[in-house]
Amino acid sequence: MTDSIFSKMIRGEIAAHRIYEDDHCIAILDIGPISQGHALVIPKEPAATLDALSDDAAAAVGRVLPRISRAILKVTGATDFNVLQNNGASAMQSVPHVHFHIIPRFADRADGPGLEAQWRPGSPDAEETAELGRRIARLL
Amino acid sequence: MTDSIFSKMIRGEIAAHRIYEDDHCIAILDIGPISQGHALVIPKEPAATLDALSDDAAAAVGRVLPRISRAILKVTGATDFNVLQNNGASAMQSVPHVHFHIIPRFADRADGPGLEAQWRPGSPDAEETAELGRRIARLL
Repeated sequence: MTDSIFSKMIRGEIAAHRIYEDDHCIAILDIGPISQGHALVIPKEPAATLDALSDDAAAAVGRVLPRISRAILKVTGATDFNVLQNNGASAMQSVPHVHFHIIPRFADRADGPGLEAQWRPGSPDAEETAELGRRIARLL
Repeated sequence: MTDSIFSKMIRGEIAAHRIYEDDHCIAILDIGPISQGHALVIPKEPAATLDALSDDAAAAVGRVLPRISRAILKVTGATDFNVLQNNGASAMQSVPHVHFHIIPRFADRADGPGLEAQWRPGSPDAEETAELGRRIARLL
């Protein structure tokens, strides 16, 4: 496991705008925010991607997402927001340590609207989809 | 609380490609997938947005994200993926019941690459950012 910039922030070796900490995770303001209040919730367990994170660490991050979101909404005045967690370079991950973005949405602010995504749903074959679902379910 | 299509799926009143279920949540394949294996993890607790979800329900969803992600990666062959959770119409939420998208990323598949987003980081004033962080931290 590479020692990422987030591990150094968790240990307090690099400065960060820390907004929350408990035994399992920290939350900081993103240093390159795509909207006002854009924050990161970071498990202390140093997994590079979510599929490699322990169940307990993932539960601990999930548990604090509502509370931290409420605080960000209250201070920024946003009502809408996205939570985004990226895994792998082609999926926009830049630091190899799991982090959940909390991104307030301000559709009317050209200089910081938040997450801007295309959403192009496909229409896959029904029987192929059913078979895909069965194959995934068998592993769960 | 409106009774959403997801509540009906949870109760088994509407068909879905269900891939996982426990006491706290279900996971299904998205009916309009933006990539192969695009799935939703849905808490049974009927909150419209994540900031209104209980800590326990949020922890339960967080706990199963790594496991369900691993199964989807294994079956689809994807290595990269995004987890996305939308709150509010301007943030791309379509069904008013919390759901986490797991979206495999296939950058080379024009007909279903997964999440395509612009990412335009801002450079806010350092002292304003510090003050914003302090105001949020005070609520946490």
